[in-house]
Amino acid sequence: MSYDRLTADNAALLLIDHQTGLSNGVQDQSLPEYMTAVAALVKLAKAYNLPTVITTSAADGPNGPVLPIVTQTLPEAPVVHRPGEINAWHNPEFVDAVRKTGRKKLLLAGVSTEVCVAFAALSAIKEGYDVYAVIDASGTWNKLVQEVAVTRMAQAGVKPITWVAVGAELQGDWRSPTGHALGAVMGEHLPFYGNLIGSYLATKGA
Amino acid sequence: MSYDRLTADNAALLLIDHQTGLSNGVQDQSLPEYMTAVAALVKLAKAYNLPTVITTSAADGPNGPVLPIVTQTLPEAPVVHRPGEINAWHNPEFVDAVRKTGRKKLLLAGVSTEVCVAFAALSAIKEGYDVYAVIDASGTWNKLVQEVAVTRMAQAGVKPITWVAVGAELQGDWRSPTGHALGAVMGEHLPFYGNLIGSYLATKGA
Amino acid sequence: MSYDRLTADNAALLLIDHQTGLSNGVQDQSLPEYMTAVAALVKLAKAYNLPTVITTSAADGPNGPVLPIVTQTLPEAPVVHRPGEINAWHNPEFVDAVRKTGRKKLLLAGVSTEVCVAFAALSAIKEGYDVYAVIDASGTWNKLVQEVAVTRMAQAGVKPITWVAVGAELQGDWRSPTGHALGAVMGEHLPFYGNLIGSYLATKGA
Amino acid sequence: MSYDRLTADNAALLLIDHQTGLSNGVQDQSLPEYMTAVAALVKLAKAYNLPTVITTSAADGPNGPVLPIVTQTLPEAPVVHRPGEINAWHNPEFVDAVRKTGRKKLLLAGVSTEVCVAFAALSAIKEGYDVYAVIDASGTWNKLVQEVAVTRMAQAGVKPITWVAVGAELQGDWRSPTGHALGAVMGEHLPFYGNLIGSYLATKGA
Amino acid sequence: MSYDRLTADNAALLLIDHQTGLSNGVQDQSLPEYMTAVAALVKLAKAYNLPTVITTSAADGPNGPVLPIVTQTLPEAPVVHRPGEINAWHNPEFVDAVRKTGRKKLLLAGVSTEVCVAFAALSAIKEGYDVYAVIDASGTWNKLVQEVAVTRMAQAGVKPITWVAVGAELQGDWRSPTGHALGAVMGEHLPFYGNLIGSYLATKGA
Amino acid sequence: MSYDRLTADNAALLLIDHQTGLSNGVQDQSLPEYMTAVAALVKLAKAYNLPTVITTSAADGPNGPVLPIVTQTLPEAPVVHRPGEINAWHNPEFVDAVRKTGRKKLLLAGVSTEVCVAFAALSAIKEGYDVYAVIDASGTWNKLVQEVAVTRMAQAGVKPITWVAVGAELQGDWRSPTGHALGAVMGEHLPFYGNLIGSYLATKGA
Amino acid sequence: MSYDRLTADNAALLLIDHQTGLSNGVQDQSLPEYMTAVAALVKLAKAYNLPTVITTSAADGPNGPVLPIVTQTLPEAPVVHRPGEINAWHNPEFVDAVRKTGRKKLLLAGVSTEVCVAFAALSAIKEGYDVYAVIDASGTWNKLVQEVAVTRMAQAGVKPITWVAVGAELQGDWRSPTGHALGAVMGEHLPFYGNLIGSYLATKGA
Amino acid sequence: MSYDRLTADNAALLLIDHQTGLSNGVQDQSLPEYMTAVAALVKLAKAYNLPTVITTSAADGPNGPVLPIVTQTLPEAPVVHRPGEINAWHNPEFVDAVRKTGRKKLLLAGVSTEVCVAFAALSAIKEGYDVYAVIDASGTWNKLVQEVAVTRMAQAGVKPITWVAVGAELQGDWRSPTGHALGAVMGEHLPFYGNLIGSYLATKGA
Repeated sequence: MSYDRLTADNAALLLIDHQTGLSNGVQDQSLPEYMTAVAALVKLAKAYNLPTVITTSAADGPNGPVLPIVTQTLPEAPVVHRPGEINAWHNPEFVDAVRKTGRKKLLLAGVSTEVCVAFAALSAIKEGYDVYAVIDASGTWNKLVQEVAVTRMAQAGVKPITWVAVGAELQGDWRSPTGHALGAVMGEHLPFYGNLIGSYLATKGA
Repeated sequence: MSYDRLTADNAALLLIDHQTGLSNGVQDQSLPEYMTAVAALVKLAKAYNLPTVITTSAADGPNGPVLPIVTQTLPEAPVVHRPGEINAWHNPEFVDAVRKTGRKKLLLAGVSTEVCVAFAALSAIKEGYDVYAVIDASGTWNKLVQEVAVTRMAQAGVKPITWVAVGAELQGDWRSPTGHALGAVMGEHLPFYGNLIGSYLATKGA
Repeated sequence: MSYDRLTADNAALLLIDHQTGLSNGVQDQSLPEYMTAVAALVKLAKAYNLPTVITTSAADGPNGPVLPIVTQTLPEAPVVHRPGEINAWHNPEFVDAVRKTGRKKLLLAGVSTEVCVAFAALSAIKEGYDVYAVIDASGTWNKLVQEVAVTRMAQAGVKPITWVAVGAELQGDWRSPTGHALGAVMGEHLPFYGNLIGSYLATKGA
Repeated sequence: MSYDRLTADNAALLLIDHQTGLSNGVQDQSLPEYMTAVAALVKLAKAYNLPTVITTSAADGPNGPVLPIVTQTLPEAPVVHRPGEINAWHNPEFVDAVRKTGRKKLLLAGVSTEVCVAFAALSAIKEGYDVYAVIDASGTWNKLVQEVAVTRMAQAGVKPITWVAVGAELQGDWRSPTGHALGAVMGEHLPFYGNLIGSYLATKGA
Repeated sequence: MSYDRLTADNAALLLIDHQTGLSNGVQDQSLPEYMTAVAALVKLAKAYNLPTVITTSAADGPNGPVLPIVTQTLPEAPVVHRPGEINAWHNPEFVDAVRKTGRKKLLLAGVSTEVCVAFAALSAIKEGYDVYAVIDASGTWNKLVQEVAVTRMAQAGVKPITWVAVGAELQGDWRSPTGHALGAVMGEHLPFYGNLIGSYLATKGA
Repeated sequence: MSYDRLTADNAALLLIDHQTGLSNGVQDQSLPEYMTAVAALVKLAKAYNLPTVITTSAADGPNGPVLPIVTQTLPEAPVVHRPGEINAWHNPEFVDAVRKTGRKKLLLAGVSTEVCVAFAALSAIKEGYDVYAVIDASGTWNKLVQEVAVTRMAQAGVKPITWVAVGAELQGDWRSPTGHALGAVMGEHLPFYGNLIGSYLATKGA
Repeated sequence: MSYDRLTADNAALLLIDHQTGLSNGVQDQSLPEYMTAVAALVKLAKAYNLPTVITTSAADGPNGPVLPIVTQTLPEAPVVHRPGEINAWHNPEFVDAVRKTGRKKLLLAGVSTEVCVAFAALSAIKEGYDVYAVIDASGTWNKLVQEVAVTRMAQAGVKPITWVAVGAELQGDWRSPTGHALGAVMGEHLPFYGNLIGSYLATKGA
Repeated sequence: MSYDRLTADNAALLLIDHQTGLSNGVQDQSLPEYMTAVAALVKLAKAYNLPTVITTSAADGPNGPVLPIVTQTLPEAPVVHRPGEINAWHNPEFVDAVRKTGRKKLLLAGVSTEVCVAFAALSAIKEGYDVYAVIDASGTWNKLVQEVAVTRMAQAGVKPITWVAVGAELQGDWRSPTGHALGAVMGEHLPFYGNLIGSYLATKGA
């Protein structure tokens, strides 16, 4: 009686090149929108205890370190520093880490959408994974590049998604124990929702 | 000699979480555009006597009551208050209500497009329904989320549509008895059309 | 201790060529946004009992009758059918009607912004009136024309304004007797506000 | 050695409800862009002698007469006044006229994109035609409706296209006798091209 | 009882560098919008018999000849080919031609807005003319350049305007003999208006 | 040798109706952009120890409580709950609080821009204050309303500004003791800057 | 362990009508964005030694010569001047040149996207090539035409892509010998990246 | 017979914080548009031999070195590294350098528009300079900040301008010796113009 939803038991998160330097190239959304979506996504990973693999390129070079919100929220996630492979799927250590998660549904996000996210997504599709690209927690150079990347990925069977939908699919039912955690992430990173709750509680308490 | 059009006899309408609180989060269209589309869609349901199922989440909590235009226009439609399921299709009472309509074509609209509409749409597709997502009578947090949601749904076979097309398919022929009712809905909610009729009648009467 | 605010005692409303035919040429806002702003403005005139003068051009010709919401809301306002003057201020009957209001603050709105509104506004400024152009309850052919019209009027001392600000200035204090009426107009035509009230009352009543 | 291109011998043009009244509802493009595209498309039909079927709805009512550019350019094209059918394909006279063209490739354009164009396009696809929807020579109420309509049609196998591509496919080779006619249409309706030719000829002649 | 309106007796039109080559650089509006505005403006000059001065730069070089619509509509207007002066006001022949018009109100349009229009406008202001810059019948490289140019000109006292307002001010009263001519220009170049008239006449004649 | 800059000694901050309910009506910017600007502005007030006055309308009604970031960051700022006055300047307690700051430069921000900010700004100008309206830390219903409000305020002498400029003027010189605090606010709320610093420090430390 | 990536050994580049005259018709991106993408793409072809075929239409007529950046960067690439064929695939010399490259993956770019790029792309797909359309290094008349062209091509199996993704796929691994060349292209044509490297090297050297 | 135009003898250029790190924060234009405008402006300074003062903040820190195009084009311009002053006018060395230019017209550009450009512009106005802010060769965080900054500066008497207008004012007459240099800058940085010249020369030479 359901489509095959994302759950805390069947999904893993792959975070590709969310680095401080690269993030300053993001212009397909405003930076506050991109940053809040990335923060929300990693907090979802923590709330649902999703196995997560982080990878970087040139992290001790110009691309900069992983965004602090990522490493601080998910301190135990393995970080694969790729020595040169642009497509993370070409790096055996990364692929091993993905396989060790044991999950067949992969959530991918990163910078840039059409390179780091799309290449890995297309490789994962080819290996039979069920792949989701989290578009608002990813970023790229302008809106046209984003549109083209989504079209290319969707054409190949990658499912485009956004972070609120990821949270809602993982949660499934607000009454599950993680409901409070989801509410907290939404309250902070979907400001409308935080305001809504704030007003409600104030009225309720009055 | 026709494609398989929506008719008053083969379609049902599912309205998911069109609540006052959630509606204030809609930013993929202007609020006047969203509100007028929702009002139009429920009036179409009334004009064509479409079996309709309304559902809510946290309606006595922050998400607020169903928009008055919905309940006032369709006072007899069952309202399923989901105690926690995010995907309405996970709620047996809702699914029962859908089945009781006896219709195989389902029109879905709600807030938010990528969660409440998309999840139920994907579930309904999986069960073999012919599913239409009414995008302008739905709403979500920003334009990017809307675009991604439409792409994901279309990829899975959900047909995206907008309210004027719903009315026109249901009507089929302006000479059918419901033609006047359709004209009234369009006259009020597609303001261009109301103005057009107003000018015409004035000239005609002169 | 205040700037010289608009009040129910010092302001009059001039509605210029809000006709069905002309309104279909409005493309500087979406039509639902324009129509809801016009409706709101005339309801404010009623709520605050503002002396109002309505004028038309070619109303029994292609430009069409005055929008029904205008005449139905303000049935007693005089309607000056200009036989040919493009600038309403060139029509003596119109100017007389304005003078009879006895007000020195004039709120103007109409179609199109850069012709019907701007010409009358510039004439009124020249005669020493304090002139406000209500931009969202006016309309024109595209955004560029609107921008240019606002710049030209502001350059001449016309104050650009929008309908919510008109209502708020007229009201001054929510505790004045008209507060309920203002709330009703805002609840219907600023949909966010109607939703906010709806949620609040539901919570309060729970 | 070619894809199956549109030619003057395999294509017919169907013009659906390009009427003066309906055209004023077009807001997915600026009106000058829409009008120039419609004019260009009908001139292409004339230049390539494409069998053309024109149809209207309520042409002696509010929807108004066919745009003069259409009937003046293609005075011999049959005009089917539909007494009520919204989907032109539901009108037997229209379908007969289409069949009499003997063409299997159908170019459709009209107002509105998601109703008049999409419904007939979907019906024609179902009957086995190769269907092209000319999006810029069609129009609808806003950009969202256009996007949704294109997605729905493309999902069903309708090929979206724009008028310059129609002309270029029909022409195939600039050296064919119709090349001059195509140049004239592009020179007038793709203003960049007219300017380009104007500059070239002036320089050449200097 | 009027502001100091533009009339057929007090205004002259200055057309600066509306050349085929330069026009292809216009990107602050769509080209169809720009071209139709230029055409409309020169037809207004003809309809109201405005003294007009045309000037060019490098017209037998890359900038190309004057747009045909300009010279064909106003064949008797003097054309000053500036040998090098960027600001037309620096060319004595041009200034003489302007002075010979005997008018104190100058309507300027051209390409590009921030150079050819703005420089001459600022010079004319300095000499005491009452200067109007017709922004939609002018064009430039992108929207930002347009915005900056309008701000700079308005700051110096130049009045920004658009072509429909020019026509309406010149006409003053629809009953004046030129009313039919204005209607013809608007019917062709403000397509909404042409459609409106077309619908009206059809209904009237029915 | 300087213009008359904002300093920690000459400026006060007035925060008007930054409430949870009202904030959900903000659509002239994305909500993440608005929320991050408000947060930044209040942190600046704290960093520079600016005397601050907070005011609300209907805070125990539908408009909701003050945004938590405001009260948590500035717990000692007086909060004037206006019983009904729309223009905060009409409330004597508010005006007293402003006067007690002893400052002649007033920074205003709030919701909505054209009502709560503009009315108080215009009143303050009238009383001789030097008034700055912080546009990005304010919000309103749509972009048009914002544009009109900025034009009206600028016309009256109010200086429009944005939060980064406020911080930079207050700081004056990065070497002043508050430099670190400003860096912290910018690092968090102007994400580009935080990323820039993050990359720099990583490289420096490598 | 990879999807079937573009490599220097399996891909060829086809540049269709990147001519000076036609390029001035590009309005789906800003001209600086289009020009920098074209320059980047040809530099990638040089860096990866991709077999390249250039073709033109009316190059000694109004369409103008090939952009200098193209011929200067790839002086040895064959240039096929088509005497009239609009679809380059209809020109046997062009097709021969493509075949001689021996590559099965074809990267296409040109002006205009919906004609020159799309027609050749559809023909190549039909012959079994794996076809990529480089959308940002192509250009057309407006955004709508671009969107429609991408949809039509994607529907037929053409993969839309953008230049940075082309470079990244070709490179595969930054450690390959061409890494420095890719960095140089990105540094110049993706300005963000050049700035990032500039900052990094400066800090590193400090 | 002229307004007081910018000339090579009366103007100086002040470049404020055009640094690699800060430039990556520019989001009010696309980066290619910003970068090409900056390059054009410094080449104009060279072509007209304008006295130029460059200044930086934290250039050996996170803000990065001056853009190479600036220092390479103007290697002899003094560079004032401000140790902490945000407003360059607060730095005596900078002000001295400005004074030594002996010019009363100052062209300012930099990052960010509302801080580095606006503060110095307002200070310079206060000291009696005639100040121009080159908006497209400046950059800031988003479009709203740009709009607010332009309004604030214009309100204070600063003249907003863009780089093509700067070049055209400086040149005055194309026949002056610098005409070739201006053509070269425009040919490269206003791509439309380069294309126009390229087509012209090719035709001319044919």
